Amino acid sequence: MSTEAPVITQDQFLKTWQGHRGLTRRVIEAFPEDKLFSYTSGGMRPFSALAMEFLGMATPTLNGVITGKWEHYAEAKATTKAEILEQWDKATKQIDELFPKIPAARFQEVDTAFGQWKMPIYALLLYVVDNEVHHRGQGYVYLRELGIEPPPFYER
Amino acid sequence: MSTEAPVITQDQFLKTWQGHRGLTRRVIEAFPEDKLFSYTSGGMRPFSALAMEFLGMATPTLNGVITGKWEHYAEAKATTKAEILEQWDKATKQIDELFPKIPAARFQEVDTAFGQWKMPIYALLLYVVDNEVHHRGQGYVYLRELGIEPPPFYER
Repeated sequence: MSTEAPVITQDQFLKTWQGHRGLTRRVIEAFPEDKLFSYTSGGMRPFSALAMEFLGMATPTLNGVITGKWEHYAEAKATTKAEILEQWDKATKQIDELFPKIPAARFQEVDTAFGQWKMPIYALLLYVVDNEVHHRGQGYVYLRELGIEPPPFYER
Repeated sequence: MSTEAPVITQDQFLKTWQGHRGLTRRVIEAFPEDKLFSYTSGGMRPFSALAMEFLGMATPTLNGVITGKWEHYAEAKATTKAEILEQWDKATKQIDELFPKIPAARFQEVDTAFGQWKMPIYALLLYVVDNEVHHRGQGYVYLRELGIEPPPFYER
């Protein structure tokens, strides 16, 4: 019974997250330009809005985790697929730079992210990734409903 | 730069997974009996099939991780919502019993799960959880399309 055993290291968490982000990028790319911003189902948001939510969470969360200072939460803003992808690639580089700067002890500290969400940092980071996986699953349904084959889930 | 720092412990991984599984249980419950087995969109599987996939992966993966012996992968079988929920609750207890038995060193070992998927054990366990989150997101769209409010994503 070694229940305090570490399961995932900082490097592995970053690699896993970026693997997911690469897949999400391919899902964004798979949408036709107009459908990315217009297609919805069941009263939910178009995939562009979900991608802008992911962008609004990713780098700002890391800045808050590293500094302990939280900006006001805000979605990214973009009006074309190219703009979203440009912001996505910029965030990819920033995440690669920022993630290794999280101090080792920080993952187990409790903080109130964006002044609203109080939880341990490891749980916050998992939430950011899980939220992307959850809503990307929604994007898979949109693509299927549009008759478009989504990129394989297991390729990262 | 402490990139080998542990992010998540064994206890925390189990708690996170069971939190997700509790939410997935509420998604199963939210479907009307007939729609759980019949409603589909975009040529995808009904949510019952996805729930049975989750059940087929959960405990069998843990047994393979602990023993190093892999059975043939198979989905669970159930024909009613009550049966699925019963198997779900049984798996919940089994996961609570099995997960702490994973030896600490095992998470970083590479194995070929079910004779098919070669990867480190930590990545395999993340895959099992991510697959559930991904397909549960699909279930959220089905519920919305049926005019049913899904359970809140952030409640675990």
